[in-house]
Amino acid sequence: MTANAGPAEGVPGRGALFQLLRDGRPRTRAELSAETGLARSTIADRIDRLLAAGLLRYADKAGSTGGRPPSMFAFNPAARVVLAADVGATHVTVAVADLGGSVIAEREHAIDIADGPEAVLGDVVANACALLTEAGRRRQELLGIGVGLPGPVEHATGRPVRPPIMPGWDGFDVRTYLHERLGVVSLVDNDVNLMALGEHRTHWPESPNMMFVKVATGIGSGLVSDGRLHRGSRGAAGDLGHVQAPHGEDVPCRCGNLGCLEAVASGAAVAARLKARGLPVESGVDVVALARNGSVDALRALRQAGRDIGEVLAAAVSLFNPSVIVVGGALSQAGEHLIAGVREVVYRRSLPLATEELRIVQSRAGDQAGVLGAAAMVIDHALSPQELDALLAG
Amino acid sequence: MTANAGPAEGVPGRGALFQLLRDGRPRTRAELSAETGLARSTIADRIDRLLAAGLLRYADKAGSTGGRPPSMFAFNPAARVVLAADVGATHVTVAVADLGGSVIAEREHAIDIADGPEAVLGDVVANACALLTEAGRRRQELLGIGVGLPGPVEHATGRPVRPPIMPGWDGFDVRTYLHERLGVVSLVDNDVNLMALGEHRTHWPESPNMMFVKVATGIGSGLVSDGRLHRGSRGAAGDLGHVQAPHGEDVPCRCGNLGCLEAVASGAAVAARLKARGLPVESGVDVVALARNGSVDALRALRQAGRDIGEVLAAAVSLFNPSVIVVGGALSQAGEHLIAGVREVVYRRSLPLATEELRIVQSRAGDQAGVLGAAAMVIDHALSPQELDALLAG
Repeated sequence: MTANAGPAEGVPGRGALFQLLRDGRPRTRAELSAETGLARSTIADRIDRLLAAGLLRYADKAGSTGGRPPSMFAFNPAARVVLAADVGATHVTVAVADLGGSVIAEREHAIDIADGPEAVLGDVVANACALLTEAGRRRQELLGIGVGLPGPVEHATGRPVRPPIMPGWDGFDVRTYLHERLGVVSLVDNDVNLMALGEHRTHWPESPNMMFVKVATGIGSGLVSDGRLHRGSRGAAGDLGHVQAPHGEDVPCRCGNLGCLEAVASGAAVAARLKARGLPVESGVDVVALARNGSVDALRALRQAGRDIGEVLAAAVSLFNPSVIVVGGALSQAGEHLIAGVREVVYRRSLPLATEELRIVQSRAGDQAGVLGAAAMVIDHALSPQELDALLAG
Repeated sequence: MTANAGPAEGVPGRGALFQLLRDGRPRTRAELSAETGLARSTIADRIDRLLAAGLLRYADKAGSTGGRPPSMFAFNPAARVVLAADVGATHVTVAVADLGGSVIAEREHAIDIADGPEAVLGDVVANACALLTEAGRRRQELLGIGVGLPGPVEHATGRPVRPPIMPGWDGFDVRTYLHERLGVVSLVDNDVNLMALGEHRTHWPESPNMMFVKVATGIGSGLVSDGRLHRGSRGAAGDLGHVQAPHGEDVPCRCGNLGCLEAVASGAAVAARLKARGLPVESGVDVVALARNGSVDALRALRQAGRDIGEVLAAAVSLFNPSVIVVGGALSQAGEHLIAGVREVVYRRSLPLATEELRIVQSRAGDQAGVLGAAAMVIDHALSPQELDALLAG
């Protein structure tokens, strides 16, 4: 639950002091006392511990070169770092981020998800540690690691739950594996949830209700409700890919059902359809390249995929009433054609009340959305009152 | 936002003291100090104010008849009351509830929503005040009023937003109207949202992700995400009634679109279909009566309505991943036939991960769901740290 809570969330008691300061504004002891109602002795003790841990810094412009002692305190995001990893089917992006969630180093490398959890995660850990060294940070500065995986994850335990494209990963205890190797807190979530969180924190913090739709080889979505990730009861929320598409009735899907949205409008589905018509495409990325070269067939196919996605999103808009839908993933890189198809159907089919302030836009965080979200998830957890108490006591 | 937060939500600073005590467990000053980190002087002052307002009581079994002074304090739900009103198209239920959300008096009376806001709300206020007197409570004990309306409501402002069945209500400032007449805080929401909240708080507090579906003259739903009502950006979330039903393509809906779920599977739609076949029914209530008398036509029609609703709910389950779907409203009173149809399709069509722990059940709060939710909404708000500070200062 704490991993869900944004920095604005209130917390009881002495934890309130640091949570207030996370907004970046420096404060005096007297201000902290007035804003929290905490005892002066509690405030003094808390500030001492946070200064010792490096999480607070003196924020006086005059510095500490004599005269009156410094009296303003501010959050110090550079104090520690977290690792973030966005694991896909064929590659991993690893990043080092500061406690403000900003990426300070990043690298990508190839993997095969089918090699199983120990091989892939061993590789992630090795690359992450190398990146940490490159960034000039020490292992002792590491506060946690957040990881996104391309399948359903039970967030509380960090275990993939029967992920369709991840043979050997079902039920694997990813959190414990990472904790044993790195000695820090680790959190795991579905990759699209983390893309939604990353996009929300960096570009839409003022839009409490957001939907992020990833259109790539598959189709998935992540939901932000009242500023928090809505994961659902099994971490399965946002699974748009296997909702029945209105015009997809006879198309078989890899999940075993017929007519799923993913079987009709994903990058793989669009590529297969164009290939069957003799066009030189193998994947969604090829379709995007063709569209960029002006292929009318590719543009039409993207527009139609957008309409098919729009049919399912129209129902999602009526149900969830977001103020913004962000479309990301490889197939969204082809410019406005896919999104134009989405808009066409959503604005026609949904109720006026649900669409009058709705924006449907392309991802701005782009390829970084996943690691930004993974970093935000683990920072929120590591700096939550409970974890922080443990850190300051230890 | 505060109206959304349940009692378990943490709050910063001195507000933490009362929020802790809302769980009902008595505590000593020392325990309150240890749990909140608040200064002893802050705690003493806070307790004095809460005792003076009646919101805390001494909880010592020995009482205060000499010897050591009492030292345990507990929340006193009987201190004040709130009013709750569930406004429908043709009748209103008004209730008086204590601060624990329990209904202590209730009455129902007929109205016509088309008489407009001043007539209907004037009537609600008159009935509510009479009920308050009947319950032996004074106006000075009133802390707030919560109202549910049968249409979309912008929760922040309390104004209906183009409600289809409420002529004259569009944009009417319900909160201010009620505040001027009663002199207390008032909050307004869509009736199905409040049914969802009432059902959740009283029967499913351990299920953080819940969907409540009302099947009556119309069809609507309310979503609970992580224990909080998900209202969406315009308060329009949960509008299942105008999602396209897979087999409803040519049926005109009152909203102007074709094939909406409400045009196919609502109480009104089922009644119209049976009536066209010569059965003596005018409404969903008549259909339920017929089904209870064993009419095979009525039972079949209810089962099919359940299947049609199930088609749309299957997509909602993939998107929202609730652990429980509660079905309420007049048409759900016919026993298991409607719900059996819902289950049949949802369990067939949704992904196994989303349904393996999903329960689909009949409403337990029944006719009281709306007023229970309205009471919970206004209590959460009135006892929130901000409102409470104002109350204790004033």
